[in-house]
Amino acid sequence: MSSYTLGVVRRHIQRADAAVVQKLSAFGVATVHEAMGRVGLMKPYMRPIYAGAHVCGTAVTVLLHPGDNWMMHVAAEQLQEGDVVVAACTAENTDGFFGDLLATSFRARGAKGLVIDGGCRDVKDLTAMGFPVWSRAISAKGTIKATVGSVNVRVICAGAEVNPGDVVIADDDGVCIVPVAMAAQVAEAAAAREANEGEKRAKLAAGVLGLDMYNMRGPLEKAGLKYID
Amino acid sequence: MSSYTLGVVRRHIQRADAAVVQKLSAFGVATVHEAMGRVGLMKPYMRPIYAGAHVCGTAVTVLLHPGDNWMMHVAAEQLQEGDVVVAACTAENTDGFFGDLLATSFRARGAKGLVIDGGCRDVKDLTAMGFPVWSRAISAKGTIKATVGSVNVRVICAGAEVNPGDVVIADDDGVCIVPVAMAAQVAEAAAAREANEGEKRAKLAAGVLGLDMYNMRGPLEKAGLKYID
Amino acid sequence: MSSYTLGVVRRHIQRADAAVVQKLSAFGVATVHEAMGRVGLMKPYMRPIYAGAHVCGTAVTVLLHPGDNWMMHVAAEQLQEGDVVVAACTAENTDGFFGDLLATSFRARGAKGLVIDGGCRDVKDLTAMGFPVWSRAISAKGTIKATVGSVNVRVICAGAEVNPGDVVIADDDGVCIVPVAMAAQVAEAAAAREANEGEKRAKLAAGVLGLDMYNMRGPLEKAGLKYID
Amino acid sequence: MSSYTLGVVRRHIQRADAAVVQKLSAFGVATVHEAMGRVGLMKPYMRPIYAGAHVCGTAVTVLLHPGDNWMMHVAAEQLQEGDVVVAACTAENTDGFFGDLLATSFRARGAKGLVIDGGCRDVKDLTAMGFPVWSRAISAKGTIKATVGSVNVRVICAGAEVNPGDVVIADDDGVCIVPVAMAAQVAEAAAAREANEGEKRAKLAAGVLGLDMYNMRGPLEKAGLKYID
Amino acid sequence: MSSYTLGVVRRHIQRADAAVVQKLSAFGVATVHEAMGRVGLMKPYMRPIYAGAHVCGTAVTVLLHPGDNWMMHVAAEQLQEGDVVVAACTAENTDGFFGDLLATSFRARGAKGLVIDGGCRDVKDLTAMGFPVWSRAISAKGTIKATVGSVNVRVICAGAEVNPGDVVIADDDGVCIVPVAMAAQVAEAAAAREANEGEKRAKLAAGVLGLDMYNMRGPLEKAGLKYID
Amino acid sequence: MSSYTLGVVRRHIQRADAAVVQKLSAFGVATVHEAMGRVGLMKPYMRPIYAGAHVCGTAVTVLLHPGDNWMMHVAAEQLQEGDVVVAACTAENTDGFFGDLLATSFRARGAKGLVIDGGCRDVKDLTAMGFPVWSRAISAKGTIKATVGSVNVRVICAGAEVNPGDVVIADDDGVCIVPVAMAAQVAEAAAAREANEGEKRAKLAAGVLGLDMYNMRGPLEKAGLKYID
Repeated sequence: MSSYTLGVVRRHIQRADAAVVQKLSAFGVATVHEAMGRVGLMKPYMRPIYAGAHVCGTAVTVLLHPGDNWMMHVAAEQLQEGDVVVAACTAENTDGFFGDLLATSFRARGAKGLVIDGGCRDVKDLTAMGFPVWSRAISAKGTIKATVGSVNVRVICAGAEVNPGDVVIADDDGVCIVPVAMAAQVAEAAAAREANEGEKRAKLAAGVLGLDMYNMRGPLEKAGLKYID
Repeated sequence: MSSYTLGVVRRHIQRADAAVVQKLSAFGVATVHEAMGRVGLMKPYMRPIYAGAHVCGTAVTVLLHPGDNWMMHVAAEQLQEGDVVVAACTAENTDGFFGDLLATSFRARGAKGLVIDGGCRDVKDLTAMGFPVWSRAISAKGTIKATVGSVNVRVICAGAEVNPGDVVIADDDGVCIVPVAMAAQVAEAAAAREANEGEKRAKLAAGVLGLDMYNMRGPLEKAGLKYID
Repeated sequence: MSSYTLGVVRRHIQRADAAVVQKLSAFGVATVHEAMGRVGLMKPYMRPIYAGAHVCGTAVTVLLHPGDNWMMHVAAEQLQEGDVVVAACTAENTDGFFGDLLATSFRARGAKGLVIDGGCRDVKDLTAMGFPVWSRAISAKGTIKATVGSVNVRVICAGAEVNPGDVVIADDDGVCIVPVAMAAQVAEAAAAREANEGEKRAKLAAGVLGLDMYNMRGPLEKAGLKYID
Repeated sequence: MSSYTLGVVRRHIQRADAAVVQKLSAFGVATVHEAMGRVGLMKPYMRPIYAGAHVCGTAVTVLLHPGDNWMMHVAAEQLQEGDVVVAACTAENTDGFFGDLLATSFRARGAKGLVIDGGCRDVKDLTAMGFPVWSRAISAKGTIKATVGSVNVRVICAGAEVNPGDVVIADDDGVCIVPVAMAAQVAEAAAAREANEGEKRAKLAAGVLGLDMYNMRGPLEKAGLKYID
Repeated sequence: MSSYTLGVVRRHIQRADAAVVQKLSAFGVATVHEAMGRVGLMKPYMRPIYAGAHVCGTAVTVLLHPGDNWMMHVAAEQLQEGDVVVAACTAENTDGFFGDLLATSFRARGAKGLVIDGGCRDVKDLTAMGFPVWSRAISAKGTIKATVGSVNVRVICAGAEVNPGDVVIADDDGVCIVPVAMAAQVAEAAAAREANEGEKRAKLAAGVLGLDMYNMRGPLEKAGLKYID
Repeated sequence: MSSYTLGVVRRHIQRADAAVVQKLSAFGVATVHEAMGRVGLMKPYMRPIYAGAHVCGTAVTVLLHPGDNWMMHVAAEQLQEGDVVVAACTAENTDGFFGDLLATSFRARGAKGLVIDGGCRDVKDLTAMGFPVWSRAISAKGTIKATVGSVNVRVICAGAEVNPGDVVIADDDGVCIVPVAMAAQVAEAAAAREANEGEKRAKLAAGVLGLDMYNMRGPLEKAGLKYID
């Protein structure tokens, strides 16, 4: 079902393997994004509502209309333990689609957090609850319940394609989506990537230059870089 | 006096009733905005300079020119205990109209905070003082004192109409303005709204779905929503 | 060397005098900017990655291409104790040019912080390290190493001219650049400015009005301001 | 009725005097804005959908909800010959609230143009019809008809206060609102302003400097300006 | 192949049926978007480089890196008569990826236009050639050829999902994408929609109100709208 | 004199050689920018007020304060035949600093156009006069004359360094600055660049692919590009 499908709720979706999600949860967004080959990120306007938020789970997707949060209630019923709700909107909108009551409901149904290309409100309560949200805006603007969208169809959220069941990783650096089919391989690539970061960090901390550690002097000279006094 | 009046300071304004302001101070911006019928909000670009800020008071309004904070000093004299200064500008401008010296003066005169459609500076000091500011920007850019604006005329601040004496409520979710004439009724509506939130929250926390609690299944089906497997 | 020079690394630059830098480090950005005659600020979109960050040091400049952080490694070699890296870009770009590995390297070489007209990532790690960064965005987006820029040429960073060796002062209010030739005089002007702030603050705290303290009543009347009831 | 009033249509409004509107229609937005004392402008993001558009008429105001154009149809009935519709929105929204069918209806009812703090579509048709629109965006995004707003209450449109019956002047430079009570006096001030512009233009065209024509040399010297070679 | 696939060129794609594309080319973006059920639009920041541009064709997709237009040359080889190139980018970037030389090549290979979520240059030449481009920016900034992206994979362009072969319709109102599988049905729905627009337009031009033509008076009253004098 | 110098007018500046300016005037912004090594551009938010505008001349620079156009009058006296005024501002501001009276004066003194990192008004008159302006905004907002800036110091305008006497080239694609010292060499590089564009264009028009004309197939394969069916 494409990102253009309205009026549909898919009840059964293929979630990424729990063990793989668990593995991926050890890494930050930057590492996972690099492990995917530098793709999968949402736009940088998506920001956490409080510093230090971090989440990794499986996507339940929602397609909203501007100023209308009806589908959020529909999505609640489709949640399972470990899900992260990813809500897209058919137009750019900053209204406050989500607050502490919905968060209470989402958490009770097993959700670990929300990523929404729209506004969020009740920030103080959500912070107190420790329910992490990444959003394009914070806004108290209320919404209505008048038009049906969809749940668990492919959505385009903040410039990223998200299919139901994909792995969602979010932290202070932003939000990254790992497709189900790539999840295992990305988890391995991320682990490999981190494995040698410790050694690199130690060398750099000791004053070794990236220029030498990565053998950049030759390529820089070839590219025409000149040193002058 | 309309939002187009320049060069005037109104000394006597009708402030919202203190008891009503006290009542409204128990609620957050989202609740009050809903209690007003989903109006009264400033644009979401207005953000607190530190997390957790919350204020409720009566508006003393200021109309500034870009890059000129002369009227802020004029406003200081008009302040009473419990006021919140609301400063608008005749053009979009992010200069730092306000810092810790003015905050010291405003506080000494009784002000509880500032809402400004412009820039703010000395953020570290203001945070240490616990003087809350909602602004469109943080900027160290200094201002001059060359052109007269107005104090206590109607202003348009970040898209909202503010009349002197109106109730200003601001928190992490943004800024809401309650007209004097509506304040008592809004306070009651807000209280009624909160009254049954606890019950709703408990139900949702227990896993009851909004779909059932709000009887949405019928309307959703009528609106054409389809469930598939 | 102008801000248009590509492919060059200048090894020897004239850094502002250490004693003067030390003196300037006592002041915030707003004070220094005023002491310069209200110039020298970067645009207000430059924000610290964590609240309370403050830095004062000598500029090592970098000119980057969009999506390419190669020159950051070249810059690391040119760093001395007390430097602050100032990175400009030939086009508007929010990619994550900088993270915890580069920060480890920069710190090991003596750098006190980074100012970058681009994106930054690994925010949680940088916060834990206490390595301050001012950037136009936070983004996990990775960069490549393909095109040479420059190190230690004049750059235009977020609207401000920065020459290698200039003093960089940054805090919660933004970023200010003091040219080497002006540094001593600005330090004195800043000190003079702060000297009488304490007295002013005390008066204002006691309820004295700026209107009276600054003798504004006459000029305001002359400018046409009217008081009405 | 304040800008917070929802669910109301006012049938009888006091329109600015036709002769005064006629007089004001001779001037551009810049002239009228200056004649008002440099106030009354909407934000500069409001742009005409085609170059050379110019309109002057009396405001019929509309308050819309994001993504909902129901009230535009309600407004059509309230139009009289010479009106200009001014549509505000309770949230920032760029959806296409208006197209060629509504333009056909508005024109048939006497409207001369539209000013909308939202999106507009069917731009090719509107251009062909010569029906001028000033909007914050051009967007094909369709809207629904689900929530009531208001017609002929005070609205805040693109940062300007607009009361029903006010004079609306719009051209390539933007949109200006003249309150009914000020219209006659502004028309005279605008005429006076234009009267001596011809003479000034001729002098400047002959090479006379503004420095001399406006006697600026003394004030500039006093303000500290230095000439160097 | 998902929108995350890098380094791949698909040579054989299923283009929408030529007769259906021909049918759809009779309609504007607003009509097609409504006929799809109000979905399929790119964000409104995508604007034509000259007024009056209109194109309808089959998508050849390109995935670019910021500041790098290498893949545009790769795409040229995959073009067939009637194609429209749709270029997405892995990060937000306004550099000038496209100018008159590439336009000459694209046209020679059969392309009818370009939609690019990036910058475009040589606007005067492109206008003279009558080669239509919809872009997020106009910028002379040159690009490099260093990193491989993809051609003919699914891309996310300005918020819309585009699969190779989809129908692309663009005019003054923006850009709409019709998936291959929906094209025939959308063409019919668009035709049906237009069929009764003429009648509606005639009625509205004669002064009939939308309130009556669409039977809105009852629903408005039910929704609580009040008329006052 | 750095971009931080306020209160100074330099009367004698070294303008780029007239013959070189003449030579450069044959080229568009994109060509000149490439001939400089892909530098020298202002940000793409600088747009011409009418399509087809093109100018090439020597820079007389102005440093303005937000909302204050006093220095524009000072600049008029410093103009010579063939100059282009380049106006920067100490803060981001969209006010209408420039209109038809100043244009009349500038033209009478020999100026060919204006580039301003601020707002412009009287667009209809300027278009009729054929006086080209590149600006960040169009706005009727009036300005005051209260604070001195500078004329003919180095300025930072829309992200570009501009020294008095530099060559300014502007067209539909944006604005490019060529330093005096580089002007002759850039003119030659631009000529060389254009010389072989005709041949390239002919080949591309005949259907030759850039892939072959630029020998890209090998490098693309080496970079890992795969073709699939």
